[in-house]
Amino acid sequence: MEFILALLLILVTAKLMGELVERTGYPSMIGEILAGIVLGPAVLGLVDPTPELESFAEIGIIALLFISGIELNLAGFARARNTAAATAAGGIIIPLAAGWLLGVLFSLSDIETLFLAITLSITSIGISVRTLIDLKHLTGDVGATIVAAAVYDDVIGIVLMGVLTAASTHSGAAWDGLVPVIGLAILFIAGAATVGRKAVPWLFSLARKAETHEMSYSAAIIIALLLAWLAQAAHLHYTIGAFVAGLLLGDVVRKDRTLLDSLTDFGFGFMITLFFASVGLHVSVPWSDLATPLLLPLFLLAVASKFAGGFVGSAYFLGIKRAALVGIGICPRGEIALVVAKVALASGIIAAGLYASVTFMVIATIFATPLLLKAGFPRLDQGQPQEAPPSSEETQ
Amino acid sequence: MEFILALLLILVTAKLMGELVERTGYPSMIGEILAGIVLGPAVLGLVDPTPELESFAEIGIIALLFISGIELNLAGFARARNTAAATAAGGIIIPLAAGWLLGVLFSLSDIETLFLAITLSITSIGISVRTLIDLKHLTGDVGATIVAAAVYDDVIGIVLMGVLTAASTHSGAAWDGLVPVIGLAILFIAGAATVGRKAVPWLFSLARKAETHEMSYSAAIIIALLLAWLAQAAHLHYTIGAFVAGLLLGDVVRKDRTLLDSLTDFGFGFMITLFFASVGLHVSVPWSDLATPLLLPLFLLAVASKFAGGFVGSAYFLGIKRAALVGIGICPRGEIALVVAKVALASGIIAAGLYASVTFMVIATIFATPLLLKAGFPRLDQGQPQEAPPSSEETQ
Repeated sequence: MEFILALLLILVTAKLMGELVERTGYPSMIGEILAGIVLGPAVLGLVDPTPELESFAEIGIIALLFISGIELNLAGFARARNTAAATAAGGIIIPLAAGWLLGVLFSLSDIETLFLAITLSITSIGISVRTLIDLKHLTGDVGATIVAAAVYDDVIGIVLMGVLTAASTHSGAAWDGLVPVIGLAILFIAGAATVGRKAVPWLFSLARKAETHEMSYSAAIIIALLLAWLAQAAHLHYTIGAFVAGLLLGDVVRKDRTLLDSLTDFGFGFMITLFFASVGLHVSVPWSDLATPLLLPLFLLAVASKFAGGFVGSAYFLGIKRAALVGIGICPRGEIALVVAKVALASGIIAAGLYASVTFMVIATIFATPLLLKAGFPRLDQGQPQEAPPSSEETQ
Repeated sequence: MEFILALLLILVTAKLMGELVERTGYPSMIGEILAGIVLGPAVLGLVDPTPELESFAEIGIIALLFISGIELNLAGFARARNTAAATAAGGIIIPLAAGWLLGVLFSLSDIETLFLAITLSITSIGISVRTLIDLKHLTGDVGATIVAAAVYDDVIGIVLMGVLTAASTHSGAAWDGLVPVIGLAILFIAGAATVGRKAVPWLFSLARKAETHEMSYSAAIIIALLLAWLAQAAHLHYTIGAFVAGLLLGDVVRKDRTLLDSLTDFGFGFMITLFFASVGLHVSVPWSDLATPLLLPLFLLAVASKFAGGFVGSAYFLGIKRAALVGIGICPRGEIALVVAKVALASGIIAAGLYASVTFMVIATIFATPLLLKAGFPRLDQGQPQEAPPSSEETQ
């Protein structure tokens, strides 16, 4: 029953703070994360991220990526793939270099420098997507590029995480293990693009013939969970699987307005809020640790390097204005960085000061991104309609 | 990620088995519980009732009772109150006596006899309600009487549980503690009927004015959780709180078809299935323990005593045919009995044979009730429309 009370506290606080932030014109996500920070160990200490709450948050991020996949149609996503590949490349290489530079400047250990470089390079797909949805810019070409780049980023990220693990454990076996890891990830993507593209809609249409009520709803959830689990089994992050499930089911589900409404209510009315609040619950830094010289340089470099990477990667395809928005849009680092940092701190790989700086960087990029995007999108819309895809990529 | 896999296994198996059972014309609930039994420790041992799964099941039973409260309007429920009080009285006194008799006949210890008597007297409101929904007989006078009687039964049940605790701990303080327990329960019911009746719809209408999307959905869930928590704080079972929340919000939510559809999808398409599967997961009896002479007498007495109690209690108000259905409808014992028995076994209050017998009795009454009701309802419908309330109670 502790759990019901915790859930109640989180939902009420997150929804109220979300509503307040929304009324100022900014994404309610910010209010939901703030609610988690306030209720959690960082401030009041009323609610801890228990395994029960974490399991709800897991379903929440799965729901978010699944719904995003549905809303973003497969064609639009496929169209963005080249732009996104270049964006992801830029958005990983420059932050990696920036992290290495910072490590050298602050005389960090090799392993801390590697940790920093990797943390800087992983965009949070959840935060990016939610920001775009809240600002109603998920489905334009800028939105599609940001989301697709974040997906590539995650795929490359697992390789980098493998490198970090191998380096920190000094184990040859861990290095050897990288090859099958990459192979499995490729297998998942290829399988989804071929078998999945036929099998998933077929499975869903089968479920709609069932006599049980609500079976299409159950089938949608089952398919999202199944692909999430398969992605995880292929060493990708499970959210990628849920996103792919959404892409594959998008055409079918978008036609069934009642089902889509139901799934959106389930996500944004309940589970997704729990996920963002749980991001806040994971913030647990003693305030005194924030007084580290690394704090501000890390945050500034985090924004500058992702912006530069995203801008350089997409300017050729999208033009300068849109590329600037893409650069901002891939800035947020998120829950993965927070959790990895927590583990690294607990196992003694990084010091308390670095942990505090990374936590600050994550939260600051999460809050800065929507503020900057909200300022940027209207300027873009003045020129031409945001929904229209640019011709540059169509002609390739 | 273990959790996602467990969820996936449960959902797929429960939905498939539910569909199979549904096609034979019986409630899909049976298939869902069977899925839990098959996947759980009783048979395959693939899935354990972990705290994470339990928290989803908790939300499931809250959703079930909340939705039932919404569907059953307050007026119909209030009309059934006298019939239900008599039914609950009969449905508690006769099973209590039957349990005592059985204890004496089988020379059980005093505390085992008390445990047996109380276990026999507590109707499972969750199982009763789900059976009625699956059979589409929730809202008639028979349905309303069964549900209202199960609510009374739960309120009286907490007093009996208090007696069991006091008796098993031999503590004077536990006996003294019964008075505030009863007082709080009465306070909750009185508060809901007066303050809650105004405050809950007002709170909900406030939420609908919010700018955040899906706020009415969130508000409905928050109100269900809030009353569940308050009920628990008042020492009632939390499902009673969720049910009361549904009753209080029924008139408003029934008008908003989209919201009601969304909540129904959330419940029956996902969470409620997890609850019933988890009932099956709680079945963990070594097969050899089932070879106890107590097994069959306990089951037969469980059905006979509740039937007799429900029949005697409601025959005056509803007539013989309907009273027979009420008697069958209050037969199922459920998850509370399973969990209490598990605790009692673990703390050495009851022996393995008695534990096995109670588990069998619970599952057998759960499966027998819908079979009997399904046979019984059509006979009733032949005479007069099932929805029409009898005049006997109106004239009081």
